[in-house]
Amino acid sequence: MKEQEFLQEIKEIELLKEALGLLEWDSQTGMPEASSAFRGETVGYLSGMAFERSVGPKIQEGLTYFDTHSDELSELGLAVYKKVKEEYELNHSIPTNRMQAYNTALTNAHNAWLQARKSKDFAQMKNEIQTIVDFLKEFIPYWKKDEATNYDVLLNQYEPDLSVEKLDQIFGQVKSGIMEIRAKIAEKGTIPRTDFLSRRVTKEQQRTFVIGVAEQLGYDFSRGRLDDTVHPFMLDLNRNDARITTRWDELNFAMATFGVIHEAGHGIYEQSIDPKYDHTPLSAGASMGIHESQSLFNEIILGSNKHFWKKQFPFFQKCTEGTFDDIEFETFYDSLKETKASLVRIEADSLTYPLHIIIRYEIEKMIFNEGVSVADLPQIWNDKYEEYLGIRPINDLEGIVQDVHWSGGSFGYFPSYALGYMYAAQLRHAMGKEINVDAVLASADYSSIKDWLTKHIHQYGASRKPNQLILDATGETLNPQYLIDYMKSIYYDVYKIKE
Amino acid sequence: MKEQEFLQEIKEIELLKEALGLLEWDSQTGMPEASSAFRGETVGYLSGMAFERSVGPKIQEGLTYFDTHSDELSELGLAVYKKVKEEYELNHSIPTNRMQAYNTALTNAHNAWLQARKSKDFAQMKNEIQTIVDFLKEFIPYWKKDEATNYDVLLNQYEPDLSVEKLDQIFGQVKSGIMEIRAKIAEKGTIPRTDFLSRRVTKEQQRTFVIGVAEQLGYDFSRGRLDDTVHPFMLDLNRNDARITTRWDELNFAMATFGVIHEAGHGIYEQSIDPKYDHTPLSAGASMGIHESQSLFNEIILGSNKHFWKKQFPFFQKCTEGTFDDIEFETFYDSLKETKASLVRIEADSLTYPLHIIIRYEIEKMIFNEGVSVADLPQIWNDKYEEYLGIRPINDLEGIVQDVHWSGGSFGYFPSYALGYMYAAQLRHAMGKEINVDAVLASADYSSIKDWLTKHIHQYGASRKPNQLILDATGETLNPQYLIDYMKSIYYDVYKIKE
Repeated sequence: MKEQEFLQEIKEIELLKEALGLLEWDSQTGMPEASSAFRGETVGYLSGMAFERSVGPKIQEGLTYFDTHSDELSELGLAVYKKVKEEYELNHSIPTNRMQAYNTALTNAHNAWLQARKSKDFAQMKNEIQTIVDFLKEFIPYWKKDEATNYDVLLNQYEPDLSVEKLDQIFGQVKSGIMEIRAKIAEKGTIPRTDFLSRRVTKEQQRTFVIGVAEQLGYDFSRGRLDDTVHPFMLDLNRNDARITTRWDELNFAMATFGVIHEAGHGIYEQSIDPKYDHTPLSAGASMGIHESQSLFNEIILGSNKHFWKKQFPFFQKCTEGTFDDIEFETFYDSLKETKASLVRIEADSLTYPLHIIIRYEIEKMIFNEGVSVADLPQIWNDKYEEYLGIRPINDLEGIVQDVHWSGGSFGYFPSYALGYMYAAQLRHAMGKEINVDAVLASADYSSIKDWLTKHIHQYGASRKPNQLILDATGETLNPQYLIDYMKSIYYDVYKIKE
Repeated sequence: MKEQEFLQEIKEIELLKEALGLLEWDSQTGMPEASSAFRGETVGYLSGMAFERSVGPKIQEGLTYFDTHSDELSELGLAVYKKVKEEYELNHSIPTNRMQAYNTALTNAHNAWLQARKSKDFAQMKNEIQTIVDFLKEFIPYWKKDEATNYDVLLNQYEPDLSVEKLDQIFGQVKSGIMEIRAKIAEKGTIPRTDFLSRRVTKEQQRTFVIGVAEQLGYDFSRGRLDDTVHPFMLDLNRNDARITTRWDELNFAMATFGVIHEAGHGIYEQSIDPKYDHTPLSAGASMGIHESQSLFNEIILGSNKHFWKKQFPFFQKCTEGTFDDIEFETFYDSLKETKASLVRIEADSLTYPLHIIIRYEIEKMIFNEGVSVADLPQIWNDKYEEYLGIRPINDLEGIVQDVHWSGGSFGYFPSYALGYMYAAQLRHAMGKEINVDAVLASADYSSIKDWLTKHIHQYGASRKPNQLILDATGETLNPQYLIDYMKSIYYDVYKIKE
């Protein structure tokens, strides 16, 4: 087989995925609901075709041939080959009938989850979660290479080369860092004023502001677009079409503001991948964690920066047509960084957010490595919230039933969110050695920040592993201390704490 | 082969077309332009696949088998079989290499057309049009069954069972009818006041109004949507997702108003096709002419009706927030039906529009049946405009270069537009025997009009031929007199002419 033939097969699979991407985007941004059944048929047919091709004879032939003829591959061809092989092994190592049974279990679990949300009762989905856990325990030996524990296998599906051993250490450090900050704030912090955050800002005013900000941050609207949706996301059809979405609340402008800044970070990443990876699986993010690092770099690092807001505040005031004329800049800035314990992950502020992840990580580890019973999970969940955040859910909807992930089989996924925080802070630190980030954010031209990220992260797409990217970009492996330091600098400033 | 297997193959082709439909809709409503090259690859790949399947071994096997086993087909299966056979023969009778060469010629002609528009000079596309004409003359013998002339063959690809003989007679009648009305208007008509038509109506005001009107007419927004575009169209992914589009001009509200009413007619048709035709090529309009009859029924028949506007005018005034408070209803109504000779087909009013079509028809007939030279076409075009409309293009952009159709190979297509006018008027006449249309339009419930059209036209999709539909619905074959009578009643009223 020639490299060209192998790459053409992969390209055709990518083209199918691009069509599927548009069908998905459309389903979430405005497809008439009545069309769902038809859409299901179209998506089912095309995704079946894409999957069959991805494990089909041509791919198999290519993988077998180049296994012993890798010298015939160009550098690009070799990188693509490796990525395709990884995905093939993940998809193809499970017996087909078991994978089909698992997919049925996922559908059942999703429906049970919807029921459990309605009744606010985990018991409604307990059996279905147990089934999924049993399936994953059955599959882990198929996937396992040299991972130390069962849960390591799941972790690595989302973040290659991550381990329980490493995460235990890192999360331990993050947890005590956050606890320390929270304790200090509780003890002697000055709570910022936030009443004006609920002043009415029309959707159009919000749009004007946040589109302006996203553009300055480097999101290219000529190669993307912003649409309304219920659950915001970024979806890239290709590097020239990376679409972002948001929801709006006229009495809570901060939601869409930070939401769009976040999604723009994902979009900038996709828009900046090297064109040589077009139509290959390398034209994608390096991992979930690295992708989140880019959205969170925007949202948490730049979006928490006082110089950034100092520059943006007059623009915000102009867009909101006088609504915030009575608010001093410092008061405005502080309001954006209030921190408060909360029960719902997606509503958490940037200081407490990692604790939500750590709770889920600890529980997942207990399930897969310590054999804890699924029936005991709500109790464990609630106890941990009480221990780490000092508040206790009064029902399972604001507790263990809140997330869709487990009913979707995505055990091992949550840590990626926290990795994104840590990577972002570590990248910020490294960037600071070359660029005066505060000065850039105070200026009218942010391009050097985006360029730095493109140079060190974006351009490589999925051709490098997260570990290598972070090491090359920052000179060291993942180090959670930068996140803790960053949190301290932001929150101690806002809460007027002198160390 | 089993019917089920045959229908499954067809369903899969339809699913591919549904994905292609969304890709097309998206390209025209908001895809970032920078994504065009990527989109071209995706569309090229999927449409190639759809075409290959449509002439592939399974379809061939099915067509061969059921040719001699039609007794094994259900009523639905038989109808689908016939439709698929028709399409197969159209697509498959031309040698592949010639069809490929033709497609290349179409691409060249489209580019030449764009050039010709820029330079406003037909000479820029003359050779390319000649090439297309030559190809079609080469293909006609392959397509020909029992048609009397070459041009009949082309006509029948868009409107089955139509003939030059019939059209000559019909268009002769329409032409003299329109000429008579125009002469009378010129002689003794009172020209309506129209100055206020250019008053500013914001896009949002226009949207509110026209969405309200389209809903009343029966367009179901829960199974469709309205988006912005440059060249308005309706595109149905399925009967639960029939999308309409429009462009807006704040200084010409009539454009989007009548545009949306028009597209809603196409949309209502698709939304009302019997679900038993889902996922088959019968879930579509019966022909281009019948499809236009439904959009024009909305735009020209209902949209010209004084009772309709009498009912809508207060709503329009409310939506436009006082802008038209000084305008009397009669004055407003008359303004909408001004008629004026114009050079550009898509800007023509409903009285002169058929003349634009007749000019094109006569020229196409000369090309294919009388061997007129392509080089002479601009002269012929301009002479005909002078003869029929009394005005002469000063360059080819407002003359022969205005339409995309010929460079796209669509000779024989134009007459469908005029058929739509005639069918619409004939349907209106037949409907009047059962329903007091004026009274319904004066009421708050228009559903009986839509229901009549669904009963007689919509529900059948493409399972019946245009001739049969019109005969069954109106009790007679196509009769252009209804259009002439209708035009007289509308325009003599507006221009205050007593016969």
